[in-house]
Parts: sequence; C-alpha cells; structure tokens
Amino acid sequence: MHIPRSALKSNLGHKATFGNSGYFGLTSGYVEGMNNHPAYNPDRLFPADPGTRDIARRLYGYVADLPIVSPHGHLDPQMFVDNTPFPNPTKLLISPDHYLTRLLHSAGIDMEELQVGGHEGQGPRHAWRLFCENWDLFAGTATGYWVEQEFAHVFGIDPSRICAEQADTLYDALSDVLAQPDFRPRELAEKFKLDVLATTDDPLDDLAAHAALHADASFAPRVLPTFRPDAYTKMYNEGFAENVDKLIETAGDGKTGYEGYLQAMRNRRQYFIDHGAVSTDHGIHNCQTTPLEPAEAQALLDMGLRGEATFAEALVFEANMTYRFAEMSQDDGLVMTIHPGVYRNSSPTALKKFGPDTGHDIPFGLDYINGLQPLLADFGENPDFHFVMFTMDETVFSREIAPIAGYYPAAYAGAPWWFIDEIDAMKRFRAATTGTTGFSRYSGFIDDTRAYCSIPARHDTSRRVEASYLARLVAEHRLTEDRAADIIVDLIDNSPRRVFNL
Amino acid sequence: MHIPRSALKSNLGHKATFGNSGYFGLTSGYVEGMNNHPAYNPDRLFPADPGTRDIARRLYGYVADLPIVSPHGHLDPQMFVDNTPFPNPTKLLISPDHYLTRLLHSAGIDMEELQVGGHEGQGPRHAWRLFCENWDLFAGTATGYWVEQEFAHVFGIDPSRICAEQADTLYDALSDVLAQPDFRPRELAEKFKLDVLATTDDPLDDLAAHAALHADASFAPRVLPTFRPDAYTKMYNEGFAENVDKLIETAGDGKTGYEGYLQAMRNRRQYFIDHGAVSTDHGIHNCQTTPLEPAEAQALLDMGLRGEATFAEALVFEANMTYRFAEMSQDDGLVMTIHPGVYRNSSPTALKKFGPDTGHDIPFGLDYINGLQPLLADFGENPDFHFVMFTMDETVFSREIAPIAGYYPAAYAGAPWWFIDEIDAMKRFRAATTGTTGFSRYSGFIDDTRAYCSIPARHDTSRRVEASYLARLVAEHRLTEDRAADIIVDLIDNSPRRVFNL
Amino acid sequence: MHIPRSALKSNLGHKATFGNSGYFGLTSGYVEGMNNHPAYNPDRLFPADPGTRDIARRLYGYVADLPIVSPHGHLDPQMFVDNTPFPNPTKLLISPDHYLTRLLHSAGIDMEELQVGGHEGQGPRHAWRLFCENWDLFAGTATGYWVEQEFAHVFGIDPSRICAEQADTLYDALSDVLAQPDFRPRELAEKFKLDVLATTDDPLDDLAAHAALHADASFAPRVLPTFRPDAYTKMYNEGFAENVDKLIETAGDGKTGYEGYLQAMRNRRQYFIDHGAVSTDHGIHNCQTTPLEPAEAQALLDMGLRGEATFAEALVFEANMTYRFAEMSQDDGLVMTIHPGVYRNSSPTALKKFGPDTGHDIPFGLDYINGLQPLLADFGENPDFHFVMFTMDETVFSREIAPIAGYYPAAYAGAPWWFIDEIDAMKRFRAATTGTTGFSRYSGFIDDTRAYCSIPARHDTSRRVEASYLARLVAEHRLTEDRAADIIVDLIDNSPRRVFNL
Repeated sequence: MHIPRSALKSNLGHKATFGNSGYFGLTSGYVEGMNNHPAYNPDRLFPADPGTRDIARRLYGYVADLPIVSPHGHLDPQMFVDNTPFPNPTKLLISPDHYLTRLLHSAGIDMEELQVGGHEGQGPRHAWRLFCENWDLFAGTATGYWVEQEFAHVFGIDPSRICAEQADTLYDALSDVLAQPDFRPRELAEKFKLDVLATTDDPLDDLAAHAALHADASFAPRVLPTFRPDAYTKMYNEGFAENVDKLIETAGDGKTGYEGYLQAMRNRRQYFIDHGAVSTDHGIHNCQTTPLEPAEAQALLDMGLRGEATFAEALVFEANMTYRFAEMSQDDGLVMTIHPGVYRNSSPTALKKFGPDTGHDIPFGLDYINGLQPLLADFGENPDFHFVMFTMDETVFSREIAPIAGYYPAAYAGAPWWFIDEIDAMKRFRAATTGTTGFSRYSGFIDDTRAYCSIPARHDTSRRVEASYLARLVAEHRLTEDRAADIIVDLIDNSPRRVFNL
Repeated sequence: MHIPRSALKSNLGHKATFGNSGYFGLTSGYVEGMNNHPAYNPDRLFPADPGTRDIARRLYGYVADLPIVSPHGHLDPQMFVDNTPFPNPTKLLISPDHYLTRLLHSAGIDMEELQVGGHEGQGPRHAWRLFCENWDLFAGTATGYWVEQEFAHVFGIDPSRICAEQADTLYDALSDVLAQPDFRPRELAEKFKLDVLATTDDPLDDLAAHAALHADASFAPRVLPTFRPDAYTKMYNEGFAENVDKLIETAGDGKTGYEGYLQAMRNRRQYFIDHGAVSTDHGIHNCQTTPLEPAEAQALLDMGLRGEATFAEALVFEANMTYRFAEMSQDDGLVMTIHPGVYRNSSPTALKKFGPDTGHDIPFGLDYINGLQPLLADFGENPDFHFVMFTMDETVFSREIAPIAGYYPAAYAGAPWWFIDEIDAMKRFRAATTGTTGFSRYSGFIDDTRAYCSIPARHDTSRRVEASYLARLVAEHRLTEDRAADIIVDLIDNSPRRVFNL
Repeated sequence: MHIPRSALKSNLGHKATFGNSGYFGLTSGYVEGMNNHPAYNPDRLFPADPGTRDIARRLYGYVADLPIVSPHGHLDPQMFVDNTPFPNPTKLLISPDHYLTRLLHSAGIDMEELQVGGHEGQGPRHAWRLFCENWDLFAGTATGYWVEQEFAHVFGIDPSRICAEQADTLYDALSDVLAQPDFRPRELAEKFKLDVLATTDDPLDDLAAHAALHADASFAPRVLPTFRPDAYTKMYNEGFAENVDKLIETAGDGKTGYEGYLQAMRNRRQYFIDHGAVSTDHGIHNCQTTPLEPAEAQALLDMGLRGEATFAEALVFEANMTYRFAEMSQDDGLVMTIHPGVYRNSSPTALKKFGPDTGHDIPFGLDYINGLQPLLADFGENPDFHFVMFTMDETVFSREIAPIAGYYPAAYAGAPWWFIDEIDAMKRFRAATTGTTGFSRYSGFIDDTRAYCSIPARHDTSRRVEASYLARLVAEHRLTEDRAADIIVDLIDNSPRRVFNL
C-alpha cells in the first residue's frame, strides 16, 4: 500500500528530451519556423526562480514521456470502434467542451450558435469564428492553456493564430489536419501514449463498444467502463421511476421492489466487472451516508417511484444508496469514487434548451466527515476497499479529505476536479494535503474530460505542476532531489494504477 | 461584453515614470532628502524574484498614471460642495477609519479617545498621540500600508516619522499641510486624477449635493449616487417601521402597503437615475433570493411594521426584496451589487456607545448558489443586467463566484472586499478565480472607503497586485507580456466602466 | 497590550551561529562526517529566491537560540519527576505519536503492531522495523520533517539512515543514545532550552507532579498545569455521569446539582491556579456559547446525568458551559483557549481497540461568529480577559478569527493547530491573518504535542516559517528589515508570554 520505492526506480530512465519539437513529436511540418508562443516554451508552468526552475525541469524529465493512465473520463468508446475522422474543428473542440462554451456564454454569446445541445446555429464555421473573436476571454484560464497546448503539440499549429483575423484560415488548416489518417481517434490514442482510459457508463449500457475494443488485438489501450448509477438513485430527477422500473425488470432476477433494485445493481456491477470495469462513480448531492433498514428503504423507494418523495426524503434514500454501494464494493472489489456538492442545472432555461452538462452546474460547500462517518466507520478500515473522495469545494482538502485519507486505509484524496482542475488550484491541493498525508494517499491525476484532444495537455499540466511543487520542496531543503524523483514517478505512473487496481 | 482588445491598445501609451517623486508629484518640498522608507520604493509590492519583478514593473508602468474610477465608496458628496479644508489630522485620518480604530481598540485603547462616534475624548491631539504610540500594531496590515503611502505620496511626509517621539511635530506638520489651499477636497480630487466617484446613499436622500456638483462645470469628476435600501428591507433593525412608513408616504404615489412600498422603491430608483446613479448596493444578511407571492409579502410586511416578525420571517422578506430589486433592474437598468454574510454590530456595548460601522461587524460563511439560484434562474441569463457579487468569505471565490460569473452573462466577480481587501488576499482572489473565469468577469477594483486620502493608495495597491499576478503568469510562460499589458489596462480602466455602465 | 518595541531590542543580541553543528550542539560524535541530508542544511525551509533567503537567514538568526516557551501541550509531568531514561525508540517516538501511527495505519499497518493503546504486538523492534520500512510515507509531511530534525539535531543520527535496510542498526544506535545520562527527560529539557512548559490536566488531578517540580530548585523549567474540563461537560461521552458526580462530591463545597457543579469548577480552577496554572483549555464540539438560565441548566444537567439527553440537548448544555467558563475567567484571570470543530473517534472499531486520541479525530467546518457572539458580547471587550481561538478549519482565519481578534481586546488568533500545524499551513495562516490584524493579536506558537523530542523541531520550524514570511514582506518593500527583526523576536518570545500571562 505504501510507495514501492523499488518499483519507481525502474522508471527513472524515462528522461524526456526538451526542445521545441513538442511532446508528441507531432509538430514537424506544422510549426512554421521558430515560434515564440509560450506553448512552445519547454519551461512552461515552472516556477520563475531560476534555481527552483532547474530542479523542476529535471523532475519533469522523469515523467514527461510516461504513458497516460486515465482512470476517469467521459469519452464515448464507440469513437474508437468506428475510428472515423473528426467531422470539423467545432464538433471536436467547441460544442462538447462546456468549460469553453460556458465562458463564451458569459460574454453574451448564444450557445445555439456554438452548436451546443445538438443545435446547429449558423453552422460550424460561424461557431468557430465566434470562438476566435472571443479568444481573449480565455487568457489565464485552464481551458485557454489546454487549447494552446493542443494547437502547439497535437495539431502542430501556432496558437498565436487563434484570433478574429485568422479564424477562417485556421478553420481550414485545422480541417486539413483532421482529415489526415493519423488524426483519427485510434491513431491519436497511440500518439498520446494512452495506456488506460476509463469511460463513464449507464448501468444498463450493454458495453458492446468495450467488448469490441477488448476483442480487437490491433488496439492497444485498455478502455474500461465505469459504473455510474446516478440516474437510478436520485428521485428528484426526471425519469427516475422509468429508469428504476427498467433496471429491476432487466436485471433484478425476477425480484421486485427494493430487493430487486439492490439485486439488479449487484448484477449490473458484475456485468461491468466482466467487461473490465474497475470502479464505480457517484455524483452524490451531499456527503450523507446513513444506511436505512430495508423496510424504510422500501417505503422511500415506493414514494419515489410514485413521484411523491420530497427533496429531503429523496436525499435520505440517496444517502442510503451511497452506503449500499460501498457495501457492494466490499464484495465485488470495485473502487468507489464520489464527487458530492453540486447544484446541477442551475439555469432552467439553459437546461430546457440545451440539456444537462452545459456549464451551469455550480458547486456548494460541504460537510464531509459528519456525512461520511457511517460509511467510513463500517468500511473505512478495510485496506482492500478503495474509496476516492473528489471535491469542488477546496476548503475540505486540508480540513477533511487529507485527515480522512491520512487515517483510513480505504480512503484516498482525489485529484482536484472540475473548476479546481486548473494550474493554481492544483498547487493549492498539493500544499493543502501533503503536510498531513504525504503523497501516498493520492488518487493519481484524473482528467475527467469530454474533450479528447485535451487529454495530453491536461496530463502534461499535472506533470508540470507536480514537478514545480516538488522542486519547491527540494529548493527549500525539505526533500532531496533523489527522493523527489522517486515521488514524481510514483505520482504520475503508480498512483492511479495502485488506487484503481489497474 | 468581452475584452475589447482594440480599446485597450489606446491606453498603452500611459507609461509611468519611476523614481522617488511619488505618484502624484506632490512630494516636492516635503520629502527631506533621499528617503529609505519602503513607501518610496518604486518596486513596492512587486515579487522578489528579479525576473518576475522586471515584468511587474513594466506592466505596472502601463497603468500607474491612469485616472481613478471608483464605482463604490462611502464619502460624503457635500465635502466637494463645501470644499472646506480638513479640520485636523485626527478627523481626517483616524476617527472615520474603522479599520484603523478597531485595531487600536483591540490593543485596549478606548475608542472614545480616538474620537469615534462623535466622542471628543481628550481632543484630537491626544488621539493622534495614541495612534503614533501604537503604530507598530499596523505592521504588515493593509491599513498600515495605505497610511504609509498616504504620508509619502499625498502629504509628502516621511512615514518613518510615525512614532511616539514625533507624534506632536508630525501632528503640526500634517496640520500645516492640510491648511494649504491645494489640500482641500476638490484640489485633492484633481491630484488624485479622480474620474468617477460613487457615493452610497439613502433612498430618501434628496441628492442635492450630487445635483450641485453636476451643475458645477468647474468640478470635473463625476460624483454619482448609489441606491442603498438596506434600512427599508431589514425588519430586524431599529427604525424599520418608521423608515418604511416615510418611504411609502413620500414616494408611494398614494398607494399603500406592499404595493406602495414597491412603487416607492421604483420611484426613488428613478430619482437616483435622474441624478446620475448607475447602481444599487445591498448589504444582505445571507444569499437567499426566493420570491414571494404579493399576499405573502404583504402579510410579512405587516408583521414587520408591527414589530412582530421573527428573525427568520424577516429574512424571508429580505430574500424576496433581493429578488425584487433584481427584477426592478431588468426595467431600469441599474447595476446591482450585493455583499452578504456579515454579523453586524456584534458588540452591543460598542453599538450603544459608538454606533454602527465602528469595527465590530464580523463575516460568516455563506452558501451562495443555493441562495442565489432563484435570482440567477430568472435574471442571470440577461446580458444587459449586471449583477456584482462581493464576499467577505473567500472560500466562495473558487467554489461559487468564479463558476457563477463564468457562466451567467449577468454575473460578475466583485473585487475582494472589507477584510480581504488587502494585498495577499487580493492575490488569492486572482489565483482563485482566473483559472475558471479569466479576467473578463471582474468588477474592477472597488475601494469601498470612508477614508478619502486612502483612495489613491488603495487603487495603486490594486494596480501593483495585478501587475505582480500577471508578471507571474508571464514568467511561467502562461501569457505573453504583450497580452498581459492589454489585460492590465483592461482590468484597471475598462472593467469598472464596462461593468458599471460608466 | 501593543508590541513593546523597546522590550524587543534587548533580544537582538541573540544571533545564532550557523553551520552543520545542529541547533543544540548535540551532534558532535554522532554525525558521521559531512552530511548532505536536508536536515543539516542551515537554510532549511527558507524561500528559494536568493535575496529573500538572505533576509530570512538574518531574521532567523535573531530567534534561533531563544528559549522555548510552550504554553500548551500534552506531556506527562511525572516524566520530569521520575527522570528515568526512555525505554526504547518505539515507546519514545512511535507509539505515542498519533500523527505518525495514523499514516502508517492508512497504509494498512495494524496499529497493534505499532504498540498503540497499550498493545504489544510483536514487540518494539518489530514496530520500529515497520516504521523504517514505510518511511517513504512521510515524505513531504510535517511529521517526517520533525522526525528528521530530531534525528539530526537531538539524537545526532543521520536521518538518511531511516530505511528498511538500516532499521535494526538504527534501533540499536538510538537505544544507545537513549541510555546515556544526558538523554533523560530533565537533561533534554535543559538542552532544549525549555523555559515554560504547560501540560493538560483533568480538573480532579491532584497535580502532585507539578507541586514536586515546583518544589525542586534543581529543575529550572516552569511546568504548569492546564485546566481541561471536557470530561465533565460533554453528556454524550461515556463516563459523564460518574465524572460529574465525583466532581461535585469532591469539590462542590457540599452544594448539589448545577450549583454544586459550578462551585466545584470554580474551586478546582483555584486549585490549579494555586499550582501555577495560567490557562484553561476546551475542546468544544461547535462554537455555540449561548448561556442558560440556572433552572434550564439544572434541568439539562439532570437529563445528562440520567443518560437521557439527546445530542442536541447535550450541545446546548456544553454551549452554556463554554459561556460559564469565560465568565469564571473574568473572576479568576485564567486565560481561556478553545479548539472547536472535531468529529472525535470517527472509527468505532479503532476506539474500541485502541482508545481515544489514536488518529481518527477529523475536523469539520465551523460558524465562529454566530456561535461566539454571546460570549464576545459579554466578555470580549475586557482587555484583562485573554481568549485564544484555535481552529482546524483554516477557512475561518481570514473570515472570522482575524476580524474578531482585530477588534475584541480579549480575543487572540491561536497558532495553526493539529493538521494545519505544518509548514505550508503556517504560511497560509500568516498570509490570511496579518493583513487584517498585524502581528500583535497572535497567541504565539503552540506545539500541542505528545512527542517530547519533537518540541525543539516544532518550535524551530515555526521560527523558520516566521522568518520566511517576514523576509517576503521585507523583499516586497512592505516592511523594513529592522522592523521585521523586532517583530520576529516579539512573535517568538514575547507573544506567548504576553497572551498567557507568563
């Protein structure tokens, strides 16, 4: 369970070479001469102090070229089965990325014009122009940073060209790139050094795409499903009754009610395991985990199915289910990840017009330990259970997550997530947790993305941030550089494999 | 709505010159030879790393001499009408500044001796001596920093002289300065390069001072009233019934009850607009914004007027009014600012003896999105509505304010405010919000001050902090310096004008 | 009450000499040649920027050799009465330090094997091996840092030797050191320059050890008891009724019920004062301090004694007692410290097997001002009352603690505590509070430790962090270096003496 020092050493040969060639070596032929854009600078994100920067550069060298392990994300696995070229720059980069469309929306741009939620607006080229005209909005943002990295290192196009004047020529240049055979999903996966990629899936998904990929020896990356039962546990969401009825009918082994419901969950989890799943994911409303007696749960479930449960009653049922999923993990070994504390779909007009997951989910503050205690009391002491706590409320990093992960063998501090998955917030996470828990209780980096081409940029960002943090500890004589080198390899490569049983 | 890049370029000629001359060129004749006090150092507040400091210095140069735009504060506009000299150093610098008197009070000094709340104590010179004797209390504080800047750059007096030994000679020297014709309010406004200054006013204020200033062609700054209706919405405060009765009687168009109350609010808002107002300000208790049916509101208002509403009921009415004020802004276009979450007048003995706003208002934690959702759902999608969210609870910067401002076209992240309007907190604000929202969703700097001579010091501080933050992004290769130059001009000059419709 | 500038100057001669000799000069004969371990680096913890580091080094020099003032901790005073050698490395360093055992536990190691809670496991040498084998867990943690410092500067043993391979030879070497006469508790106290050391004691403790030490002219440090009545105020904990019955019977002056209970508290406080106590300590559940009428309190106490109080009722009684203890301090002058907001014993299985205080107490978020207002309203304005607010929830530093301590003469900001008593968190504390309150409202550093040999490492860490923070202010031209020198001496030496009336 602790950092396997010897295991790390084997990776220390992975020294990256630096230069303007980009980290995928994809840029030859696309970069027009020397480029001064920051995205080409090999010291990007490293601390300004020259001595610390030197250390960061060396530490980054150990991990720059390591394969990508992505234990949680939102790509569609069918993409790799079909392996069709991406249709156009807008469909690849803009429409599916709500971090990008939300900020354009804040500037008064209609999301219909950005082709969000299936709308066509005035077409993809018009959407692209809007994006380019408003590129200044993204200065200083994580999204802006990732897009620049993608241009420089995936597409081999100078990110300085993202501006109103060059919108059309850029659209055309990018379209040309996307039409090339080696820019299809599978070919990119290889270039990205994608080793493991988890998707997020409905419990009733047949996982045919996963099966197809698994059966295809020509495709190297492991693409794993993740069991995400939220649509079956939240009585306050539309479709709950239909979903639950279908679940019990499909997988309940003929049992009915709460008993059939639990049995169906168990069965579908096993189906996921049979298709390679290693974890379940739960976007729970709050952190409550108080278990219910079967009769209580049955009564609440009945109310929920009849549409008669109050919001408070629905949360009581949801809390019980969070506990029950942890209980199921004791038997089937699935890693359990939670990310509580979000007001979903805060804009009803946007929900109606564009659907969920379009940028108006807003986090709120949480009470971790008072909610999680029943779960931790019963399952937290089990080292074979892996329970990963994500948060959008960074106040709990030092106050609750680090103390919990630093005691309970089951508990791990999830990587910064959502809005705090940006450069300075990642540094705050490190500074807030390490003093209490060290590095061994970390989930490994999670990209959690719907934007395929941002994956290498996101992982590279995490590697640069870890190198910068560790470089500071070395510069302040808190760690030797040798030890920091071991640690960064462990963080990037071993942590996610260890925590997610990969 | 987005950063108008071209507009920025026009300001790039404003390069400041550095040196010991002070940023107003006011110091000639007052500074005794070369001074080593930090307040004279042109690199004040810039990061220590030499490379980053160089960048910060250059970026600051673009904004150092820009005029001051102050869209929210607490000065008395009559000051500019009368233009009488400031009576003495204590009345100018100590008594009205509760940041200063509160820390002296914490050291056991009776606020009566500091001439707070109209008390005379042992006179202004005695108060001044107490201040000088206890100057060490202010080391490291924002207040201490601003006072030093004022001495060095407004009064032209070496801040090293603030000490027990020189209390009397300093009092005399400062009195001499204040007696000079060019140290009267209007003359200082010119030296401060005051372009826009908003005051905060009672809805029934006749705004005569504003009218007089507007009519006076010899006075260049725009002095604008701000509609602040708190005294008419909080049933739990003394005087509520009297205030409301008078409001309805004065401005209700003959209507009565809740209908007359709303009509009077609308009428007075229009009166403010006619006198130049661009915004309303609301010191709300919490973030609740649930609207009520008219009959419910009427019933609660009746209870409040009879003095029979509980605190919980009063908050329900206040929440309704926060929603209603947002609704009114849809019609009349006033910008709406809120600053929730303060336990007002926590010390009853101090309230009784010295009155409100004397340093014992203490912030508490907030739940932004669950409270604001009704308001945002109905008005947040309107780009013509400007809704500025301030906070004294910095945990909501990354968790709620940045995510809200980064989606809703109406929502803006207010500058750090009150206790977090200090140097390191301003840096934390930047680091907590920029990764999610960039720079375009920022309100612009707000000085919110009752201390006239601190205005240039406060704005200069903000400019130096922005330069330091941006310099770090440049040094870390996250932005080009060109782009950072555009951004800093936008932040300092364009943001407040854009957000407050100036 | 303010920083006595002149008093500070007297300490400025205490310039430390640097080098590899360690700060106790204990290392001669133990360090094998030049050692490159960071623990020997004189610049440890100082900022990397060379200019800032130079300043930090000079500022640290003023306080490096000052005596240790420790106004709150958890050592057993009998240790100094007996002055027997420490039995073995495990009993000294591992078993009693729950910061250390908790992280080993998180890695799946049974605490029984670490000899926690009186368990013997496979003996101390086996426990020691487990610690050494898992040493990598502590990289980057405060505990790891302190252990390294102890090895280098107390035991004179190269901390690089903490590894699986050298576990046995290290155990033997350390055992040899502990067997030496000058490594007994009293001799170490002298080497640590221990000036004041407070213990934490049960109200019914006879304080015989304190009396014996006080009577012994050969032992220089002042060892003071601290009145900690938690076991008599929390109805929800086991043993409450027995404890209270015994308290009233022993010290109630024959009175009964709530009256006898309060009288017994007063009497035992006086007994503590007579034995040198200067403060009381309260691990309260939340921040509530609403006082009750005697009849209400009596009724609740009766319910608690019968075991019939709900958790909510128990908290109401606890809130009343927090208020009453503050009230008692008005009369007897004891300093009052609080540290609210912890879910105690979150793991029932660990509580049952290993007892309390074994690493599974987890903090939660707090509402300071709404809870504390009744206490502050009635006693906060009294400058002779000293009320120190600790927190494990760092969000309240800038939001509530700094504003409260910066107004109320009674209120002081407690040093970072528990999980946030680590290097980066201490920096955050400074940055979060100083802008509002400066340095005068600080409690002084608190080590709060059960690990005797970590005391000098912890205090040295604090001194280095303060030097680093102040160096940044100097480097940014916010303070002169002279003034920073005064301040650091005040923080380290005068603050705890002033706040704890030492």
